[in-house]
Amino acid sequence: MEGTIGLLDDLADAERKALGQCHHAILGADRPLHLDCGVDLGPYRVAYQTYGTLNAEKSNAVLICHALTGDQFVNERHPVTGKDGWWDSMVGPGKVLDPAHYFIICANVLGGCMGTTGPLASDPASGTTWNLRFPVVTVADMVRAQAALLDHLGIADLFCVIGGSMGGMQVLEWTASFPKRVFSAVPIACAARHSAQNIAFHEVGRQAIMADPEWKGGDYRLHKTVPARGLAVARMTAHITYLSEQALQRKFGRSLQNRNALGFGFDADFQVESYLRYQGSTFVERFDANSYLYITRAMDYFDLADAHGGVLANAFRGTPTRFCLVSFTSDWLFPTHESRDIVHALNAAAANVSFVEIESDKGHDAFLLEEPEMFRTIAGFLKGAATVRGLRGVP
Amino acid sequence: MEGTIGLLDDLADAERKALGQCHHAILGADRPLHLDCGVDLGPYRVAYQTYGTLNAEKSNAVLICHALTGDQFVNERHPVTGKDGWWDSMVGPGKVLDPAHYFIICANVLGGCMGTTGPLASDPASGTTWNLRFPVVTVADMVRAQAALLDHLGIADLFCVIGGSMGGMQVLEWTASFPKRVFSAVPIACAARHSAQNIAFHEVGRQAIMADPEWKGGDYRLHKTVPARGLAVARMTAHITYLSEQALQRKFGRSLQNRNALGFGFDADFQVESYLRYQGSTFVERFDANSYLYITRAMDYFDLADAHGGVLANAFRGTPTRFCLVSFTSDWLFPTHESRDIVHALNAAAANVSFVEIESDKGHDAFLLEEPEMFRTIAGFLKGAATVRGLRGVP
Repeated sequence: MEGTIGLLDDLADAERKALGQCHHAILGADRPLHLDCGVDLGPYRVAYQTYGTLNAEKSNAVLICHALTGDQFVNERHPVTGKDGWWDSMVGPGKVLDPAHYFIICANVLGGCMGTTGPLASDPASGTTWNLRFPVVTVADMVRAQAALLDHLGIADLFCVIGGSMGGMQVLEWTASFPKRVFSAVPIACAARHSAQNIAFHEVGRQAIMADPEWKGGDYRLHKTVPARGLAVARMTAHITYLSEQALQRKFGRSLQNRNALGFGFDADFQVESYLRYQGSTFVERFDANSYLYITRAMDYFDLADAHGGVLANAFRGTPTRFCLVSFTSDWLFPTHESRDIVHALNAAAANVSFVEIESDKGHDAFLLEEPEMFRTIAGFLKGAATVRGLRGVP
Repeated sequence: MEGTIGLLDDLADAERKALGQCHHAILGADRPLHLDCGVDLGPYRVAYQTYGTLNAEKSNAVLICHALTGDQFVNERHPVTGKDGWWDSMVGPGKVLDPAHYFIICANVLGGCMGTTGPLASDPASGTTWNLRFPVVTVADMVRAQAALLDHLGIADLFCVIGGSMGGMQVLEWTASFPKRVFSAVPIACAARHSAQNIAFHEVGRQAIMADPEWKGGDYRLHKTVPARGLAVARMTAHITYLSEQALQRKFGRSLQNRNALGFGFDADFQVESYLRYQGSTFVERFDANSYLYITRAMDYFDLADAHGGVLANAFRGTPTRFCLVSFTSDWLFPTHESRDIVHALNAAAANVSFVEIESDKGHDAFLLEEPEMFRTIAGFLKGAATVRGLRGVP
């Protein structure tokens, strides 16, 4: 796909590796992306990955929207971490989203750090790295960039848009902004607006990053520093919110780490401490601190009702999309009542909607894990949608 | 009360102000405090406050145990912050704990920073500030220091020991360590052991402090620095856990702070962000970062069953104490099931126990707030206990 060497010069090593393993498109050179903040952005790059083949009717495209710290490497070895794809459980041969049947697309979000334009990129006007001068983007902006990518790929509409957490917010935004381009939608473990508690946790993470002297007002790359400790603390805080109390108790309880007795000090006595420290330190190796600020901000700003006159149902009036919502009993970051609010609004808009709350003690992260009932629910929904769509071959 | 000028030389300004407004005792000079970590500590200072008068029978003493960031200034203007006493709702004329009837004592915990010996104090052996060389203390150590204070005051037993959160842990420890000295016990919003999730949140706070370069391995006072940003982040994280999702939504929701529209930046757009930042910055003015490390560690280490052969009921075998437990429906830091576990253990030990779960949307902090049902519950329990005790005048 297209690219400019100029942009590549300014990439962090991780981003360079990412781009080496995926496609990317340079968009907006002729028609910039108009952002919610008022800025016209262009040109900008969207890094994306695809699995499977677009059929002749172009009717089998599935867009996966990734979460806060996810990326386009859904179903393959990650170029930076070397770990398995983040949604191998859902995507792959014989899985719910089988590349034998679907043309699956996943793009790194606007503001991200795996190849799509974000604070790591260069401002085309000045030639210098954006850093904190990058405009603050919204979930709607992310979706507009994805829509521009689809235009670029010649895909008029999607058989399905699916995603969990911030991915689910993008799914909702897709159905509100581009209803005719979305045949079916699967928002998982998400909400139509970010709650006060969730904003609070994000703010703690941002304060931890910005309190790190190595952050240097966002210009750490100029100073060749990394706000690693601040970003690690941000990740640790967030990570607790992704798990349930029960999951933490079951996995770790009060078990000690490599010792038989309390150490009476401030090393990691407990396994849960050691685990969190590991989560923090490995995250720093793959994620950009400024991107973390921008993407958390986009989630905080998400409020679909507010963007539609304060009435959530207005976001869905006349929608032709078929919806399937999924939530998890132990998810306290995006609790079931928030999915139920969306279902109520969809009902008020007379939309076609199914909703399943899945019994799980795995917390918010359940959508990333082996959850057979989630797989059965979504597979059944997609099979029905494929029949209506006239999409052949879906088992 | 007694004191040595030598110790005073080394106090932070806040601690000096605190000591100017309360009593203190120098203990352990002849018989040191044997700590769980194996260290013998002495001499050490306990700063405490009292309200009311000890009766002739010495039968009306009530010990209040404070929480993580609380102190001895229960029912008066705080010498450092200038704010009202932290438990004015519970203590005072006409309140549940009325100084007209009870001799009320509250001591700053061991490891604290309001006058009782902790990392701010001087090591008597070397004459230098303890900082991180202060021994790691436990909840049981805190209770032993309080028991030594009672010995010093000539009080053989307590009519009641009461406290919430870490205060409740101390109450439980009192009943297990000194059952004959406790006539009645009121552990509120607490647990018999710190959960994995709670350890995880504490670890994030400690990592935030220790990641601050101004912390300097704990020796910030030597370097005349303050790890203010790290401590503020720790406080912000903890503060979220003290409130319920509903309380945050009710108090703040997605309301903006001094603006009509989103700012598209990283200032505090939302009231909840501004509130958290304020909580973080004011906390730094009154609390010592090393004390925060030590006291969170003490809570993490608390596991009453583990200290009694793995069976919680063993901690209460043969107890003569009358118990009244209180929990709150929206407290997710110390959820009701943890109080219920204690009740089951007390039942198994054939103890005299009552337990009330109070409907409240205020989260863990409910125990500090106006909760009429909590007041009624505890007042009724104390009235009954006073009758059995033969304590006259309790209305």
